[in-house]
Amino acid sequence: MAETMTYSNGVMTIIDQTKLPTELVLLDIDNIKEGWEAIKQLKVRGAPAIGIAAAYTLYISVKDFEEEDVAEFLQELQKNSDYLATSRPTAVNLFWALDRMGAVAEENKDATVSTIKEKLEAEAIQIQKEDEEICRAIGVHGQEILEDGMTVLTHCNAGRLATAKYGTALAPIYVAQEEGKTIKVFADETRPLLQGARLTTFELLEKGIDTTLITDSMAGMVMQEGKIDVIIVGTDRVAANGDVANKIGTYTVAILAKYHNIPFYVACPLSTIDLECPDGAAIPIEERDPKEITHGFGKQTGPDGVNVYNPAFDVTPHDLVTGIITEKGIIRAPYAENIKKLFESE
Amino acid sequence: MAETMTYSNGVMTIIDQTKLPTELVLLDIDNIKEGWEAIKQLKVRGAPAIGIAAAYTLYISVKDFEEEDVAEFLQELQKNSDYLATSRPTAVNLFWALDRMGAVAEENKDATVSTIKEKLEAEAIQIQKEDEEICRAIGVHGQEILEDGMTVLTHCNAGRLATAKYGTALAPIYVAQEEGKTIKVFADETRPLLQGARLTTFELLEKGIDTTLITDSMAGMVMQEGKIDVIIVGTDRVAANGDVANKIGTYTVAILAKYHNIPFYVACPLSTIDLECPDGAAIPIEERDPKEITHGFGKQTGPDGVNVYNPAFDVTPHDLVTGIITEKGIIRAPYAENIKKLFESE
Repeated sequence: MAETMTYSNGVMTIIDQTKLPTELVLLDIDNIKEGWEAIKQLKVRGAPAIGIAAAYTLYISVKDFEEEDVAEFLQELQKNSDYLATSRPTAVNLFWALDRMGAVAEENKDATVSTIKEKLEAEAIQIQKEDEEICRAIGVHGQEILEDGMTVLTHCNAGRLATAKYGTALAPIYVAQEEGKTIKVFADETRPLLQGARLTTFELLEKGIDTTLITDSMAGMVMQEGKIDVIIVGTDRVAANGDVANKIGTYTVAILAKYHNIPFYVACPLSTIDLECPDGAAIPIEERDPKEITHGFGKQTGPDGVNVYNPAFDVTPHDLVTGIITEKGIIRAPYAENIKKLFESE
Repeated sequence: MAETMTYSNGVMTIIDQTKLPTELVLLDIDNIKEGWEAIKQLKVRGAPAIGIAAAYTLYISVKDFEEEDVAEFLQELQKNSDYLATSRPTAVNLFWALDRMGAVAEENKDATVSTIKEKLEAEAIQIQKEDEEICRAIGVHGQEILEDGMTVLTHCNAGRLATAKYGTALAPIYVAQEEGKTIKVFADETRPLLQGARLTTFELLEKGIDTTLITDSMAGMVMQEGKIDVIIVGTDRVAANGDVANKIGTYTVAILAKYHNIPFYVACPLSTIDLECPDGAAIPIEERDPKEITHGFGKQTGPDGVNVYNPAFDVTPHDLVTGIITEKGIIRAPYAENIKKLFESE
């Protein structure tokens, strides 16, 4: 089974996610142009995975720098970092990872170029390792809500393909499996971009997990039929009061869960909780290209001239959230209070 | 603007709905083979429209019968009727229309072949006319819930493309428009077969109605944002207690409506209410080909080997239904009682 990304001796190997679910293509990336394109073209996607890929690519871009002059080296590093930052200009983890790499170089500017290179390689590896540890910790806390034989419904892809390993929403399922529990999954296909159909089903099947694909419109019926025990989704940003922004459709799933008395959990690293953001209303919602809906599959499915509304995310108010699964444990209501406490205890 | 189907001098002209929304192709049908194929290949679809198309095709199939022997004529008619019945073997309206045509021939078996032919042509025209009258009456009653400036959300296609004219769920919108009200519509695309994206948006745009296409997963968010005043959907069958079977995803929309305190209406002719069916649990739900989900757009979007659950319909319990709009008025709770009363008053 292929990993989302591996690194060895100056080469990063990634799964080309644009080819999933029909082809498993591994790409070796050993120069900055390929790394930039991989991020730009969504061959690697998911906030944590983008950060890791950017860090490795930045190291790869300077590892063969031949001069011994540190100032020149740092200049080259900055230039490459600026270029990589243009690959997905709205991806927060991309900047975070590049900044972290830059800080390491800066801290070591009195050392030799060769030493700085070593430090940069080590930092990229460390970024990946930390992500893996955080995701596994999310899984360890999250698997406590999963009993043997349970069925989870998830929306979009917050799995290992979006992170170094384990993922966020899917981490509890993978760790439960490691502990010998049998968990089944229903995956919403997740229109318009079908991350659920293309990615979530793929990665769960690779792990031998019994996975059923449904359209987003079927989530209500499978809950009505008693097929679902718990819902776990990822999130792009959590506000200080526990409101959750995630892939469009998540809010609908949360309301369906409430109506059927099914627990609705959100999984994320603490870094996704934005204490500066008071509530969901303060989270900006990106609107995307109408063609994702009218021409979603290489074929026109909506008429010319129709209005299209295509918000990429929606906001689920915290009162619909049963718990937020983090690497430090599960946060429950009252969210404003308990989120604050958790950060103060850090 | 083209009509779903028109008839003149032995030729039925239909919109080829498989070409929508990108091409408006009119097909002239003047023999039984073309009529059979049009129904089989979903060029004409929607229960009432299928019935009308079958009736016209049956007449067309015998109009040039050259013998004067009535017995031979009736034999030919029966043979053609049996053949047309194989085009969509689960479509109730198809059998209903063919039976009605057969009964007319039977009633006139003492007349000449020429007279029977005239009666058959008149009956097919009458079937279409009655459907149009019923749909318009649904619209007249339904438009009472629509105030100028309101926005309606609908799911799937229960519009004029599924009937002779007006449709069921969309009839109130068309009649409101005739009465000078400006009504906007949000249309769920309606996965897997995208009737909302392909057909509902097309027919509303043709009528100059402001129409916005969304994915099914966006219905919750547009309600949260206050964009929707009322929901109107069609139905395939209503049970005696008011439970409603309709296109998969309708149940989800009904729960979202309840959560946001938005009225949820179902529109249908009285013939869709099945008094023999006590409740939703008694309505059989067709499961369809998994490929509609994994290969829905001429491109594989789900991995090989994934389980797929593809129910074509779901059941919305009557307590989520604000009213059932029929040609005789709007039925409201208590449904079992009020449905019974309406039929007794017939």
